[in-house]
Amino acid sequence: MSTFSQYLLDKYSDIFTKATTHSFTTELCKGTLPDDKLLLYLIQDLKFFQVGIRLTCKLASLCDSDPEQITLAKQIGFFANDENDYFQICIKQLSEHTKIDQSVLLPQVETYVAYLRNLLVSNNYSYKQLVTAHYLMEEVYLKWADDAIDQGIIPANIEWKHKEWIDLHSGEGFSTWVKFLKDEVDRVGDETCEQIFVDMCKLEFEFFDACYNYNF
Amino acid sequence: MSTFSQYLLDKYSDIFTKATTHSFTTELCKGTLPDDKLLLYLIQDLKFFQVGIRLTCKLASLCDSDPEQITLAKQIGFFANDENDYFQICIKQLSEHTKIDQSVLLPQVETYVAYLRNLLVSNNYSYKQLVTAHYLMEEVYLKWADDAIDQGIIPANIEWKHKEWIDLHSGEGFSTWVKFLKDEVDRVGDETCEQIFVDMCKLEFEFFDACYNYNF
Repeated sequence: MSTFSQYLLDKYSDIFTKATTHSFTTELCKGTLPDDKLLLYLIQDLKFFQVGIRLTCKLASLCDSDPEQITLAKQIGFFANDENDYFQICIKQLSEHTKIDQSVLLPQVETYVAYLRNLLVSNNYSYKQLVTAHYLMEEVYLKWADDAIDQGIIPANIEWKHKEWIDLHSGEGFSTWVKFLKDEVDRVGDETCEQIFVDMCKLEFEFFDACYNYNF
Repeated sequence: MSTFSQYLLDKYSDIFTKATTHSFTTELCKGTLPDDKLLLYLIQDLKFFQVGIRLTCKLASLCDSDPEQITLAKQIGFFANDENDYFQICIKQLSEHTKIDQSVLLPQVETYVAYLRNLLVSNNYSYKQLVTAHYLMEEVYLKWADDAIDQGIIPANIEWKHKEWIDLHSGEGFSTWVKFLKDEVDRVGDETCEQIFVDMCKLEFEFFDACYNYNF
């Protein structure tokens, strides 16, 4: 019998695949993504991250099971350390030699951040809906990173600015985290979670697309 | 000029001192607290912790400032690792040779846990009120631990079960965390935070008192 998470992935495979096979992440994995595009993306994604980590905190505050709550709380610590450090260091390094307007917030990203902010401040969303949102976000990232590894497109001498972002979204630790979210979706998810999955799938694609196609 | 946190500590010094100078913590620091009292306390405190960490997650989800949010998120990771580990290991160890009814939930603790649960599920509490609640909880623990260190009452050969609980609530890391909460109270706190401070001061005292005076 198919699980609920698999049902969602199958039903929305078109848009999920669009989100996980974008030229933006392919070029990032090949190490060929231009610095101005990477920096633009990171500045946008830091804004996303700052709302996203609060949303994970809200998710953890709503979790009904103690062991699962502890897993969420540990991951919040990981975000605040490893992922936050990558943003701070990489944006600083790239900013030293890459001249872009750092105040730009792309409309598609603004839309996505506003969507997350609504999930954060509204009292209308349940744990099962928020965990589905988290699952989709992380499954997209695991998929593009794992596919790049499987396809062998990542050069051995890839630079830290690309490698660290791939490492943060692949490997045992991240796979375990995504598997945990998938299991939670299968434990608690139902039809009330479907729309949020679709919405976020589209928003993920549009985020990559907006950063990739921005005219400097 | 006195800060708001200092105003609260001064105004409620009687009940704050009662909470930080209880025989329960004094005996714990001397290593003389009987195992049945320690185990009873830890079982109660684990229930408190399980609501408390969710409340810290809610606090972090509401934080208005990005650097402060990251500090809160890092501390959530610490709770989920170091503090959670202590509960799991110590309760397991003590349970092997200490026979108590582990299903007991003392009325005073039940009251405190219910108070926290209301802070967690209600939409009526602001960041400033919740950060004041956190500050009080942690300042009580820092105070009894630091006082015991300053007074030299902790024996050099104190057992792990006592020492680890003292270490978790003293030293540079914990002091920095409490100072952070104090600074947040001073940054955002106002008269709407006073009642929660008083309530929790009393609840902290009653928690220790109930565990100490329980008749086995």
